[in-house]
Amino acid sequence: MPLLAVGSVALDSLETPFGRREDVLGGSASYFCTCASFFGPTRLVAVVGEDFPEEHVRFLASRAIDLGGLSRRPGRTFRWKGRYEFDLNTAHTLDTQLNVFAEFRPELPEAYRDSEYVFLGNIDPDLQRTVLDQVRAPRFVACDTMNFWITSRRESLLRTLKRVDLLFVNDAEARQLAGEHNVVQAARRILGMGPRAVVVKRGEFGALFFSGEEVFAASAYPLPAVFDPTGAGDSFAGGFMGYLARTRREDHATMRRAIVLGSVLASFTVEQFSLDRLRTLGAEEIRARYAEARRLAHFDDLELDLFDVSTPS
Amino acid sequence: MPLLAVGSVALDSLETPFGRREDVLGGSASYFCTCASFFGPTRLVAVVGEDFPEEHVRFLASRAIDLGGLSRRPGRTFRWKGRYEFDLNTAHTLDTQLNVFAEFRPELPEAYRDSEYVFLGNIDPDLQRTVLDQVRAPRFVACDTMNFWITSRRESLLRTLKRVDLLFVNDAEARQLAGEHNVVQAARRILGMGPRAVVVKRGEFGALFFSGEEVFAASAYPLPAVFDPTGAGDSFAGGFMGYLARTRREDHATMRRAIVLGSVLASFTVEQFSLDRLRTLGAEEIRARYAEARRLAHFDDLELDLFDVSTPS
Repeated sequence: MPLLAVGSVALDSLETPFGRREDVLGGSASYFCTCASFFGPTRLVAVVGEDFPEEHVRFLASRAIDLGGLSRRPGRTFRWKGRYEFDLNTAHTLDTQLNVFAEFRPELPEAYRDSEYVFLGNIDPDLQRTVLDQVRAPRFVACDTMNFWITSRRESLLRTLKRVDLLFVNDAEARQLAGEHNVVQAARRILGMGPRAVVVKRGEFGALFFSGEEVFAASAYPLPAVFDPTGAGDSFAGGFMGYLARTRREDHATMRRAIVLGSVLASFTVEQFSLDRLRTLGAEEIRARYAEARRLAHFDDLELDLFDVSTPS
Repeated sequence: MPLLAVGSVALDSLETPFGRREDVLGGSASYFCTCASFFGPTRLVAVVGEDFPEEHVRFLASRAIDLGGLSRRPGRTFRWKGRYEFDLNTAHTLDTQLNVFAEFRPELPEAYRDSEYVFLGNIDPDLQRTVLDQVRAPRFVACDTMNFWITSRRESLLRTLKRVDLLFVNDAEARQLAGEHNVVQAARRILGMGPRAVVVKRGEFGALFFSGEEVFAASAYPLPAVFDPTGAGDSFAGGFMGYLARTRREDHATMRRAIVLGSVLASFTVEQFSLDRLRTLGAEEIRARYAEARRLAHFDDLELDLFDVSTPS
């Protein structure tokens, strides 16, 4: 069964130390679906305005992305304008124009209602639940959120969390949601809110996965050049969920591979502006970087005779 | 051949969100030698004042640490006073009293001159070289430094770097030394300054190892409670160098295990104030946490038939 994703399709204007771009393709669902589509078909639920360029629609359609749930409404497309400083870690929002996204009420085409894998992108938690209400029997639901919803719509977010299997957050969001600085303790508290798994994304430092007593730490692929961090988190989620939906397994070993694949997809996304790197990316490159990630993290067992000096034991 | 370490032996006064301690055992060489001593004998070169408690001397001597190079001079012992906020990542120095450390001129006992493994703790780079001058045929030399030396004694530090095999730095120091924000590029530049290997320590995020084209990423063990981060870096170096001197190998696979052991030792150190956790630590606990680190970082190869959807290849 294909994967369903709800989120934003946007036009981004970006400034980084390496250049700027105006009105390029962006939005959480664009990154998510493009990355997930390497693994199988993906169903998109989003809204754009009358000004949304046809070339972007053609690009998304070329990627095994079902656009039956992409509605075009009178008005302008959601626009985000942001700037990154040299450290590239923090996005400084310069301007947000919700436009048609302000009235977004996700409606699933009948053909989408049998989706088993669902990704609830970073939108109002009320809307996230209306999406879930329209899916007949979701098998695995993952959810993204942000500081804005954690502070301003906390009760609604907590209701959503009771209905999801996995939450994607970054360190700061995990701390904020849990009210706890230590990230291990924060993840444990979040597991108590409903999800059976939490992925804490740490940008250039990788990601942590928590589920029950299981902990997995994935290092990010150390890139010699990062161009534009926009979309890294949604690319991560897209690689992760695409792989899960493809394998139809949710055991911990599968989740670990999914996290590394998410990290690999994100590492490609940030190499160029917008979705540009994903346009030329091939399956063999994904596979090669996954193998690279294996070499990067590998170390052997210890020799057995290591501690025979006179130390306490 | 035993490992030689030069650095500070100090009395620390610490404030963390979890409590405070006055005049407890501290200093780079204390942490380094105690951690290294789990793997074999270690030779200490440092200076203390008349006020240095005999119980600390007895503790260090009980750990297979050769104190022939620990001199006691008229005056007071080096004192450092620091505070950590809730994030525990940054040490705020409240007071530094160099005392006898201000006149420290490391002199190696004759019996130390055949040392093959040498750790140059974070002291004036001129002094680091006078230590090297006194070692007949060092086989592997590692060096630590800090922002103060990078800015105020850069030329001297560069001379030291030409004579070391491995440099330990944190992210910020690597960037500062290389004049380059991207950590991969920064490490490459540092490799051009002399060392054949660089370890970039990233605190709670782990460590990166660079040598030639080799890159290794180790995740830090995610701790549910960190008490006092003082000495984490020197504990890391002590575990690393102790293991190297023990195995007498310097191939990349050995270095990777050494980095994980360094990370494991550091993870124990921060669990309690001062060296308290190291006092009760046993070899079996080190071995168990190393095994834990293997499980933490493990993920399998990808299935071969993964990408058979109609994506670019």
